[in-house]
Amino acid sequence: MKKGCPFGTHRVIEPKGLLPQAAKKIDNTMEIYSNEILIDVITLNIDSASFTQIKEACDHDVEKMEKMILDIVNERGKMQNPVTGSGGMLIGIVKEIGPDFPDKKLKVGDKIATLVSLSLTPLKIEKIKKINIENDQVDIEGQAILFETGLYAVLPEDIPEKLALAALDVAGAPAQVNKLVNEGDTVCIIGGGGKSGVLCSYQAMKNAGNTGKVIVVEYSEENAKRIKDMNLAHEVIVADATKPVDIYEKVLDVTGGKYCDITINNVNVPNTEMSSILITKDEGTVYFFSMATSFTKAALGAEGVGKDITMIIGNGYTKGHAELTLDILRESKEIRELFEKLYI
Amino acid sequence: MKKGCPFGTHRVIEPKGLLPQAAKKIDNTMEIYSNEILIDVITLNIDSASFTQIKEACDHDVEKMEKMILDIVNERGKMQNPVTGSGGMLIGIVKEIGPDFPDKKLKVGDKIATLVSLSLTPLKIEKIKKINIENDQVDIEGQAILFETGLYAVLPEDIPEKLALAALDVAGAPAQVNKLVNEGDTVCIIGGGGKSGVLCSYQAMKNAGNTGKVIVVEYSEENAKRIKDMNLAHEVIVADATKPVDIYEKVLDVTGGKYCDITINNVNVPNTEMSSILITKDEGTVYFFSMATSFTKAALGAEGVGKDITMIIGNGYTKGHAELTLDILRESKEIRELFEKLYI
Repeated sequence: MKKGCPFGTHRVIEPKGLLPQAAKKIDNTMEIYSNEILIDVITLNIDSASFTQIKEACDHDVEKMEKMILDIVNERGKMQNPVTGSGGMLIGIVKEIGPDFPDKKLKVGDKIATLVSLSLTPLKIEKIKKINIENDQVDIEGQAILFETGLYAVLPEDIPEKLALAALDVAGAPAQVNKLVNEGDTVCIIGGGGKSGVLCSYQAMKNAGNTGKVIVVEYSEENAKRIKDMNLAHEVIVADATKPVDIYEKVLDVTGGKYCDITINNVNVPNTEMSSILITKDEGTVYFFSMATSFTKAALGAEGVGKDITMIIGNGYTKGHAELTLDILRESKEIRELFEKLYI
Repeated sequence: MKKGCPFGTHRVIEPKGLLPQAAKKIDNTMEIYSNEILIDVITLNIDSASFTQIKEACDHDVEKMEKMILDIVNERGKMQNPVTGSGGMLIGIVKEIGPDFPDKKLKVGDKIATLVSLSLTPLKIEKIKKINIENDQVDIEGQAILFETGLYAVLPEDIPEKLALAALDVAGAPAQVNKLVNEGDTVCIIGGGGKSGVLCSYQAMKNAGNTGKVIVVEYSEENAKRIKDMNLAHEVIVADATKPVDIYEKVLDVTGGKYCDITINNVNVPNTEMSSILITKDEGTVYFFSMATSFTKAALGAEGVGKDITMIIGNGYTKGHAELTLDILRESKEIRELFEKLYI
């Protein structure tokens, strides 16, 4: 049994020199290298942008969608939508584990969800069993490969599958908050009312403790009320994060003029960089989770106002992120109920 | 004397709620607030993109260019090119210092260069004395305002003005390297042969010391040779940073399979994020200085290969950055000579 590259480049067919995600075609031969695992796939959770594109291109005709999905996977060796570039994730049962695969706790028969994108995961579909047009899920018979560096989570028995998946989708965010926030910190979570915002707020309250202060800035009145009702912040401000002066004044008003040690940006609209920068203290940290963040706006913005702060690009992965996130659902009855209501 | 907002929002005329850089028009009344300074301007160093645009729009006619520059400043209260959005910096003599301006060492009569963009600096031009079409400089009679958070450097007497400006332009980079790199670290500088790359390499060699290893990756043979000749790295690799697999193999080859503690990306072309991510060790740091960095490519890229790394958005400012950078020119005769040859 040969050992592959940890990042899966041994399966890239073309163009050579790129990683599996950037490649057009990868090798989906279902024989593992010594540092890979083989998965019997149950369900593909197609990324929403990709599923919508397929649905529309096929006029909502399930048979046509079936053919389109099979064509993509046959051509590319992976379920990466050629228009959107996006993938999704999958659920399946571990069938074989290479002797050099690093996680020695994983067992054949474990039910796992992959936490790396389908856009880089070797996949072979034998048969599509059902396309669920309502929730972007495709039940299949088929197999997939996970590389040595591929992320996954063993699905827990005490949390329903869909609830677990909804939370795991944003697992990086609360885990990074756990690494950044210390007791006594003043923390602002901009866009704290959404899915990842709620998890971040919970974790920030836990880490900052009684001597800290957690401030949530939310655009939506409804989401803000929820944060207040669930006691997930010491202060909740309803405001528009694209208005930096307004945010600056309102945040410093509730802190009594103190700047924040840590600012977490979860807002998925552009132009919220300056709000995050202005409210953060010198030598403080801004963590940008929002995919709408502009690198240049952040870089030039901080220099323009002479802020000596550390600005971090949100990394969806950090060690133990899946477990920490599932533990929040175990610890907080309110968050579990909210997620059951909103995301299942 | 009234006190203004530290970020200069008290001078924003429209649209209200934005910062001076994003504003269309700011108040260039040359009476200072208590936390501002007034500068007698000598020279505007117009940003290259802006100067080129003006030059072309005016068919290289200096009289037309004069009128265009005056029109922009009269209309906007600042020298921000409406097409490129960019500004530049200025050199001048401090004329008045408000009592609440934080730096108490600055004296009236000091010659300074502003290190914040002209795109946010209140400016009034009385007369344009000379447009130097060769080097993007405009000598004027006029005045400018610096806010409380505005960055500047007092120009040193032992370094010629233009040499100092060329180095100060990228002062953030070596100063951040100084904060990040510790003795014994393995450091890779991608794009180490350019202006900021040379300064970063020098600082990395100094901090990493004899027990560390500094690797420079350079696309240009000529720049790579220079780094070798000047002894600014332990290893120099000539390669294309947009080819992640190649970079990964070459870097791990010279480290004997060890990943880097710190990777500094200075390359000004797109698609070099994955190279930076792949060569960095778990819990290591990638510092992106390149303005060509894509936030989403970095964020999704690290997750795709399961890298638990900290990715930082380059901040052009950190405390003491100007002094540290000028000190490199004082310490290294070779770098000083190189910069004199290339940038004056």
